[in-house]
Amino acid sequence: MTDVAADDLGPWLSKEKIDLVRRLVPMLYLNLVPVKLDTTGQIEAVGLLMSGTAEGGMVREIISGRVLLNESIRAAIIRHIEKDLGELALPQLPAHLTPFTVVEYNAIPGTEYYDRRQHAIAIAYIVPIAGECVMSEDSLDFSWFSARECWLPETLAQLSEGHACVLRKALAHMGHLPSLKH
Amino acid sequence: MTDVAADDLGPWLSKEKIDLVRRLVPMLYLNLVPVKLDTTGQIEAVGLLMSGTAEGGMVREIISGRVLLNESIRAAIIRHIEKDLGELALPQLPAHLTPFTVVEYNAIPGTEYYDRRQHAIAIAYIVPIAGECVMSEDSLDFSWFSARECWLPETLAQLSEGHACVLRKALAHMGHLPSLKH
Amino acid sequence: MTDVAADDLGPWLSKEKIDLVRRLVPMLYLNLVPVKLDTTGQIEAVGLLMSGTAEGGMVREIISGRVLLNESIRAAIIRHIEKDLGELALPQLPAHLTPFTVVEYNAIPGTEYYDRRQHAIAIAYIVPIAGECVMSEDSLDFSWFSARECWLPETLAQLSEGHACVLRKALAHMGHLPSLKH
Amino acid sequence: MTDVAADDLGPWLSKEKIDLVRRLVPMLYLNLVPVKLDTTGQIEAVGLLMSGTAEGGMVREIISGRVLLNESIRAAIIRHIEKDLGELALPQLPAHLTPFTVVEYNAIPGTEYYDRRQHAIAIAYIVPIAGECVMSEDSLDFSWFSARECWLPETLAQLSEGHACVLRKALAHMGHLPSLKH
Repeated sequence: MTDVAADDLGPWLSKEKIDLVRRLVPMLYLNLVPVKLDTTGQIEAVGLLMSGTAEGGMVREIISGRVLLNESIRAAIIRHIEKDLGELALPQLPAHLTPFTVVEYNAIPGTEYYDRRQHAIAIAYIVPIAGECVMSEDSLDFSWFSARECWLPETLAQLSEGHACVLRKALAHMGHLPSLKH
Repeated sequence: MTDVAADDLGPWLSKEKIDLVRRLVPMLYLNLVPVKLDTTGQIEAVGLLMSGTAEGGMVREIISGRVLLNESIRAAIIRHIEKDLGELALPQLPAHLTPFTVVEYNAIPGTEYYDRRQHAIAIAYIVPIAGECVMSEDSLDFSWFSARECWLPETLAQLSEGHACVLRKALAHMGHLPSLKH
Repeated sequence: MTDVAADDLGPWLSKEKIDLVRRLVPMLYLNLVPVKLDTTGQIEAVGLLMSGTAEGGMVREIISGRVLLNESIRAAIIRHIEKDLGELALPQLPAHLTPFTVVEYNAIPGTEYYDRRQHAIAIAYIVPIAGECVMSEDSLDFSWFSARECWLPETLAQLSEGHACVLRKALAHMGHLPSLKH
Repeated sequence: MTDVAADDLGPWLSKEKIDLVRRLVPMLYLNLVPVKLDTTGQIEAVGLLMSGTAEGGMVREIISGRVLLNESIRAAIIRHIEKDLGELALPQLPAHLTPFTVVEYNAIPGTEYYDRRQHAIAIAYIVPIAGECVMSEDSLDFSWFSARECWLPETLAQLSEGHACVLRKALAHMGHLPSLKH
């Protein structure tokens, strides 16, 4: 197994290395739902990115990324928030790392939690943002949506089905469900 | 049932009313563990009050109090934090109200979760404090303890056994346990 | 305080006593969602009661009830399951009593979590049922619904808005959301 | 990327493949704490394995293992329980996969959560066991310990410090702490 050069063993992986690992084990991901809270802890807004797709379309996204080798989960959360929302976002990390849910993505087309790239297991956190967000150049947009706007079918339809599920679970966990008009 | 005068029906209850309710139903309480977190969410310190006891001694305490009639849990958390730690404490309420534990106190002497006054059920939250704390005049002291100091037997011995249990559960929930020297 | 007769101080309260307590403090409730799980822990069905309403209609319900004075939460969960589903229901109580959500009901008409009787705070548990259920004579019906059936608007419309919210939060917590057809 | 032979891509990995992956990404693990509950959900006992160490000693362990490529978390929990406790163990999987804690192991000697083999992130579950356990031939022993016995220093000293921490967090989460004699 000499295909991995010694100088290639930092936490960042080449496309080739990532592809190799994806063929061997489930990938560990973080799914992060950035939220603005008011002073009583009530949700004011959820932040969603917009990215381009391989097919030339656009898709809204929650923040998602790997934990690197020898990186702590807390450091990885901060790194992903800063990468996508800038260094002034001031994420407020929880005192405890129990995720609000665990998400299993798989590479089988047609399934709800579909990730064409890989089998991935994501631990999901709601991350209050205390500062100001500056969109990274990797994104096409970053916008805040009220909880009510998040539940609109036209909003949810802009996310992949998997990310829409995580968003809806996060909203339900925070006590927000679409109102039922009987 | 005319013993409750109409002008007596605000959320604050007289000693007589409280005594009456205590003889009829379990009392709903909040148990609040104030913590200082660093920028990565790691616990820096836990805040403990000191109060006088009926016997003339002193006891360390976490923050504890009732939810009043028609008061929301969020409003009650803020009220108790402000009452005990001042209006500049800036408690950071969670986006979701799932407690880290539920505690059952009872009035049976000798039990672990003993409350001589009542059967009480407390929902317990860890509350990060972002501001400055000013001790109320009801307290004899308010001090911050590192997680390591909290686990010292001499610290835990200053709390009632019930509050010591809640504190230890909160520490364990935040990932802090006393080190084991094998 | 002689208005409460000594022989009246068991955990069961007369209508008058309950009314008195309701005017003084929030009532502590349990909200219990009975579920059938398969051998891998996946949800097969949720059990819903049907009761008559004061207006002569019918309403589907999750199991709901008080914790009595000096009763443990575990004993109260078992008592309510046995009362509504019979002694052979074999509820599987969790090893830990952390609720999946806390629900705040109030007596203000038009609000989502409306309870015309009272301000109530309910701690909510999902309770797997291992045995056979026998409907109590207090109910008009008890039926099992698949997760998909629970999400149908016509099912949810049969519950009060508050109970529908608890049911939806329980389903989301168990990983079940209505599918999104983009 | 032809170094991985096509017939080598099942979920089970050779020692070489595992070593390669360990040099590239954190490994995803399950930490499982098997428990016996009484009919009210109270913990009766915790099951601990005993294994031989590389140094010729013996160590008590909770159940620990990987999630394989394209395996669901539920299937992996069942597989590891059956492998270590036999096919008649009848693990009762939870309706929701939210772990009670997330554990970060690293390969840095002297740290609390030390795993000499790797950086690993474990999602930890308490798994009630309803059936009979038959020890696998990989183990030297499997025994049930009461919660009180688990907290004894002589018991905890038989586990690695990381596993002892997970065990103590599980006990605290289930409401069990060593009693404090003031």
